[in-house]
Amino acid sequence: MNVGQKLKTVTQTCNYIKMNNNLKIKLHLAQLVVWLFLLSGSFTFAQQTSGEATWIWYPGDFEIDLANKMQNRRTERGSFFPVFWKTDSHYNLVDFHKEFDLSEPEEVQIAVEGKYNIKIDGKAIPGFPDNIIMPAGHHKLSLKVYNQAHVPAIFIDGQTVKSDKSWLVTFEDKEWIDQSGKVSDQSGTTWLQAGSANLNSVQKLPSNYALPVKPLNPVDSQKTELGTLYDFGKETFGFIKLEGLQGSGTVAIYYGESKEEALSIANCETLDHLEIYETSATDSILELSKAFRYIQIVTSEKVSIQDVSMLFEYADVEDKGSFKCSDERINEIYEVAKYTFHLTTREFFIDGIKRDRWIWSGDANQSYLMNYYLTNDSPTVERTMVALRGKDPVTAHINTIMDYSLYWFLSIYDYYLYSGDPTFIKQFYPRMQSLMEYCLSRRNENGMMEGLAGDWVFIDWAEGLSKEGAVSFEQVLLARSLESMSLCAEIAGNPEDSSKYDALAKELKSKIFETYWDSEKGALVHSVVNGKPKDNVTRYANMFGIFFDYFNDSQKQAVKNKVLLNDAVQQIVTPYMRFYELEALCAMGEQDYVLDEIRAYWGGMLDLGATSFWEEYNPDKEGSEHLAMYGREFGKSLCHAWGASPIYLLGKYYLGVKPTKPGYETYDIKPVLGDLKWMEGTVPTPNGKIDLYCSKKEIKLNSDEGTGNLILKSKSKPKTNHGTFVEIASNTYALKITPHTEYLINYKAL
Amino acid sequence: MNVGQKLKTVTQTCNYIKMNNNLKIKLHLAQLVVWLFLLSGSFTFAQQTSGEATWIWYPGDFEIDLANKMQNRRTERGSFFPVFWKTDSHYNLVDFHKEFDLSEPEEVQIAVEGKYNIKIDGKAIPGFPDNIIMPAGHHKLSLKVYNQAHVPAIFIDGQTVKSDKSWLVTFEDKEWIDQSGKVSDQSGTTWLQAGSANLNSVQKLPSNYALPVKPLNPVDSQKTELGTLYDFGKETFGFIKLEGLQGSGTVAIYYGESKEEALSIANCETLDHLEIYETSATDSILELSKAFRYIQIVTSEKVSIQDVSMLFEYADVEDKGSFKCSDERINEIYEVAKYTFHLTTREFFIDGIKRDRWIWSGDANQSYLMNYYLTNDSPTVERTMVALRGKDPVTAHINTIMDYSLYWFLSIYDYYLYSGDPTFIKQFYPRMQSLMEYCLSRRNENGMMEGLAGDWVFIDWAEGLSKEGAVSFEQVLLARSLESMSLCAEIAGNPEDSSKYDALAKELKSKIFETYWDSEKGALVHSVVNGKPKDNVTRYANMFGIFFDYFNDSQKQAVKNKVLLNDAVQQIVTPYMRFYELEALCAMGEQDYVLDEIRAYWGGMLDLGATSFWEEYNPDKEGSEHLAMYGREFGKSLCHAWGASPIYLLGKYYLGVKPTKPGYETYDIKPVLGDLKWMEGTVPTPNGKIDLYCSKKEIKLNSDEGTGNLILKSKSKPKTNHGTFVEIASNTYALKITPHTEYLINYKAL
Repeated sequence: MNVGQKLKTVTQTCNYIKMNNNLKIKLHLAQLVVWLFLLSGSFTFAQQTSGEATWIWYPGDFEIDLANKMQNRRTERGSFFPVFWKTDSHYNLVDFHKEFDLSEPEEVQIAVEGKYNIKIDGKAIPGFPDNIIMPAGHHKLSLKVYNQAHVPAIFIDGQTVKSDKSWLVTFEDKEWIDQSGKVSDQSGTTWLQAGSANLNSVQKLPSNYALPVKPLNPVDSQKTELGTLYDFGKETFGFIKLEGLQGSGTVAIYYGESKEEALSIANCETLDHLEIYETSATDSILELSKAFRYIQIVTSEKVSIQDVSMLFEYADVEDKGSFKCSDERINEIYEVAKYTFHLTTREFFIDGIKRDRWIWSGDANQSYLMNYYLTNDSPTVERTMVALRGKDPVTAHINTIMDYSLYWFLSIYDYYLYSGDPTFIKQFYPRMQSLMEYCLSRRNENGMMEGLAGDWVFIDWAEGLSKEGAVSFEQVLLARSLESMSLCAEIAGNPEDSSKYDALAKELKSKIFETYWDSEKGALVHSVVNGKPKDNVTRYANMFGIFFDYFNDSQKQAVKNKVLLNDAVQQIVTPYMRFYELEALCAMGEQDYVLDEIRAYWGGMLDLGATSFWEEYNPDKEGSEHLAMYGREFGKSLCHAWGASPIYLLGKYYLGVKPTKPGYETYDIKPVLGDLKWMEGTVPTPNGKIDLYCSKKEIKLNSDEGTGNLILKSKSKPKTNHGTFVEIASNTYALKITPHTEYLINYKAL
Repeated sequence: MNVGQKLKTVTQTCNYIKMNNNLKIKLHLAQLVVWLFLLSGSFTFAQQTSGEATWIWYPGDFEIDLANKMQNRRTERGSFFPVFWKTDSHYNLVDFHKEFDLSEPEEVQIAVEGKYNIKIDGKAIPGFPDNIIMPAGHHKLSLKVYNQAHVPAIFIDGQTVKSDKSWLVTFEDKEWIDQSGKVSDQSGTTWLQAGSANLNSVQKLPSNYALPVKPLNPVDSQKTELGTLYDFGKETFGFIKLEGLQGSGTVAIYYGESKEEALSIANCETLDHLEIYETSATDSILELSKAFRYIQIVTSEKVSIQDVSMLFEYADVEDKGSFKCSDERINEIYEVAKYTFHLTTREFFIDGIKRDRWIWSGDANQSYLMNYYLTNDSPTVERTMVALRGKDPVTAHINTIMDYSLYWFLSIYDYYLYSGDPTFIKQFYPRMQSLMEYCLSRRNENGMMEGLAGDWVFIDWAEGLSKEGAVSFEQVLLARSLESMSLCAEIAGNPEDSSKYDALAKELKSKIFETYWDSEKGALVHSVVNGKPKDNVTRYANMFGIFFDYFNDSQKQAVKNKVLLNDAVQQIVTPYMRFYELEALCAMGEQDYVLDEIRAYWGGMLDLGATSFWEEYNPDKEGSEHLAMYGREFGKSLCHAWGASPIYLLGKYYLGVKPTKPGYETYDIKPVLGDLKWMEGTVPTPNGKIDLYCSKKEIKLNSDEGTGNLILKSKSKPKTNHGTFVEIASNTYALKITPHTEYLINYKAL
């Protein structure tokens, strides 16, 4: 055992030693290096099995670091293209501890990413031991770890002494002593529960985390003027593999989501230029994964490639929800939406896979919602939310965008509602608070948020959309954010804050109606500039007002007819805002209309050969016009998360399932067929699922947990094999649903 | 040129490739790896020569990272012993830019620590080029760098295009585009001047920074019961070198600042246990430098060592000041103080070299002051100040100690006063502001600071010293801090803040006298507990009140006689508070008394064989009692920065030189011999020095800059070869000193 420090041999000059000179931390990880070499290179997150040891860290830190790594993989025509907002770091010095009661002494294996010490009852053990004996009795085991390059993390594994999320962690333990050796006042130290991600073996080093891959081959290849074009059959993502690469010279790879893009050496968005010196045929894999359907490979004269394939890189997130119906067009749209959703669900919920590969709060908010109806993967939701928030101090809005800060508050409460898990709120409430205080500090003298220096008021990609003054849409989001804060403050055990934010929300809501509501127009107007409401009406504040339930009934009808169904109000061309527009219409009972819109809009992309849904779709455009955006020929992303919204709409507003108390303790099921003959599907719940089949006559239903409230529109009182329907309105019947019961219901759809 | 990304060869399994898998950032630094191997391993800071390219970074980030590295070298009996407060990280994604006007195109070399892109006028150049051509005309060159492991840093070197501190940097450039490609509102972006440290060659990688070393040999060795004891003759610091090490087994090294400590295998504070497998004789150097005078080496049977030496590790900081006088005892004390100061002046001003090796704000405040009279090294001052402050958010006091937050404000204004350079204040004013707001937010209902949960109220190591309630000493420091903030706010261009802090300072000062001043005791009492002033008087608030000039003349006399010269008031036993106590006495004209105190107190340590000055000295203790502290046999540091204060006292209160306007634009020289026959010395100024010789009859004086005010006490009007003395009080004469003039003055000392 090498206690204290290492020797350097003066005369040694080999690379390995020299590398170590620049990696002093690594030197203290001698025992880990072996594991590094044993690693298969990638592994996946899975639900933690209780009782297993797992790698742990300061909560949020692994996520922030992983987000940095992922977002910094963006390139644009071979140039590194990082984000333009502040990115944060993990705490580089972290204290971990837990108290144990052992009936007998126990040998405990220790693995650490970083330089560390270990203490039992505050007394340090010399050196960097990789195993210790924990004595019998009640004892406190602590480790303190420093790591600048990677997240300080520990893996502790004994018979009963194991690292898991019940350990407590802090970045400032305040463990000083006075001159007599007396220990300090640690009462000011905040201890949080450790973060973990089900890396349940010592080999699964957090710093080495990578998504899994599987091999895929192109479906077609053809010669081009300069090289060869490979078609992988549909939009995909991964590492290009050059098989039997040989020779000396260059290889250029031009990536395309469209054939046009891969063929455009001058304008394709992503490319690789490689220098090759291979004397014998070698299989080589590019280090950086990319999005494409097509690639064009051009080699210089003396370079040859025997074959080209790829390693498809994916997040191994399981489908727990489903949807199928009598309309094959809708089924096809659902399948492509699912594929789009899976491609954009990576380490985090990202926007598009070709270009940004970044985490955007507005885009993620939609992914969370889709996720609740398809994958219901809490770890990806939590990872994304904490990565977006980063750390204090708040120096700008999330992604620099005002609306994106606000979506973040909404998404946290949604997560609690769908998952029932208050832990995220409890651990990160201080970060919610500081972001909200930042937002509140940027209100104008009327208590409204306007774009200040450096703020991006995004709203939507829409031509000529005014961002000037106090935009009604932002105030509606702020009001909802304050309501979320009030609920979360309560959960975090801070009733004073809860009342404060509730009062602010109420005040703002009434101010919104005083300021923006135009009863003649039957709408909230778009903005107030220099104290004066503008005439302009846009859809944004109005559609959010609908599903936030901010309008009274007559206002709702006015908004529906004068805004949502009024073609004279500027049309929405992004699937992003189509999501909310169609949600508002569904919330108003316009499921028939919305089905037609889905068929036309998403079907329109399919008709143009889409294999995943796009960042923007304007049916008025033609041919390769569809590929352009941001003033660039192939600027548009053809696989964008916000394109997958049918997943959410079909689950929430057709199957009609949604929680009404956190974690589906209670929930509604209001099936609406629209013009469908039948539909069937599954909606995941925290610990199970709800299965539903619905035709115009028959409903089959089974749920694993919670208490449901099935609400049916029927010409007559439905018949059920369990329980009793109650008529709650004209032709509207409700049935209480208890879990683990096969309901078979006959009714007559209206 | 490898544009975009690298290949990994699938079948390759050698270490180098595997290491790279875990070091993806390094892969993007291909061109740097070569330099890493060329490095001699260490280099020193030096003043930047204008016109040279230098490595640059976000200001403060190199310092914060280096402080983490240095502070994390502490070990205790072979265990890693990190700090107990929050440590911060560099910004991991930094944007650098500068605009240039070139008359002709220019080739520019690029070196970067991190993954990067380069843009000319906002347009990215593909890949990671190591040289570019900057076109003629007016152009903006930008680089954006990501690095988690090390500080993002760039070195740019062309004919005229060079990286230096005139470049601007930010951690959030907010450089987005809208869907038409239009660029964003960057008006909210704060750009600071780049940080640098005179690493003026591409080889001097910031991440590889290390202090220089030189070989030293022991002066003696002797066999011990178990091994061999080596004596290096005096307190020293460095890397042990084992020459001709051979065999298989263990080597144990026990370090001692005293012989007793090195011989105490059970209780020495630092040690190394090594495992050895060397088939042939090898010279090996330990990786971690340590403090010691003695080492005891114990090897297992089959291990042999031919010789033992060391590499002395030091900060190459030059002496610019000096002091010499007619009393050899004082000269000896000055020399040992200088050695102590140099040993504790490392990458930063640290406390002690054996144990903590940490940066403590209270200790550093004294080092800054000594530095102004010896080394006047601005880079070490700035590095230390910024490392102490770290980054927002403020979650605890600096070093967790209330008084240590407050010293930090004082030291910044002092630095401006001695250096005349406002840059630090301008760049870091927001960090001053947020720390002050933290302090102000922790006042009690009477506007006084009391220790809250987790606060360490340190004051001094003194038995039975009460930290309860609102301690007068802390309020005096807070008042002075508010005064400093007011001055700094003005310099930072924030007159509103300046007025605010000035008003707060005035209010607090009058409250201090209302609350603590006891005219009967002639002193500020120690504390107020539960609203009631306690009877107890301590020296702390009273001595600071003297040199902060907070007392009127009668209060000063009362404090001097009833507190400072009153043995009934608890004695100070640390050189730390002796510093301020003797300063207060000097400020009251008690230089004779103070010389005797220096002879007794510092001389007392010399009599006990000290080769550097200690953390604590109590003349009442005997033998090895002097070595103990913190309840540990060898817990005391025998080389502690705060032990070196005679450097400051002799320069400021005997040579009597101090600036009266920032940067010695004006300064006082008030020589006081005390009981010395003569003294001579040099005090450094920002761009030169002041030389002074003074006997009871003669003064020789020359200065390089500023306007001096020589003030002499003389029985009659002194004679001078330049200018004219003016009598300003009884037997007190003043002469205006202009630079570059050899003054020769005759006078008759009182």
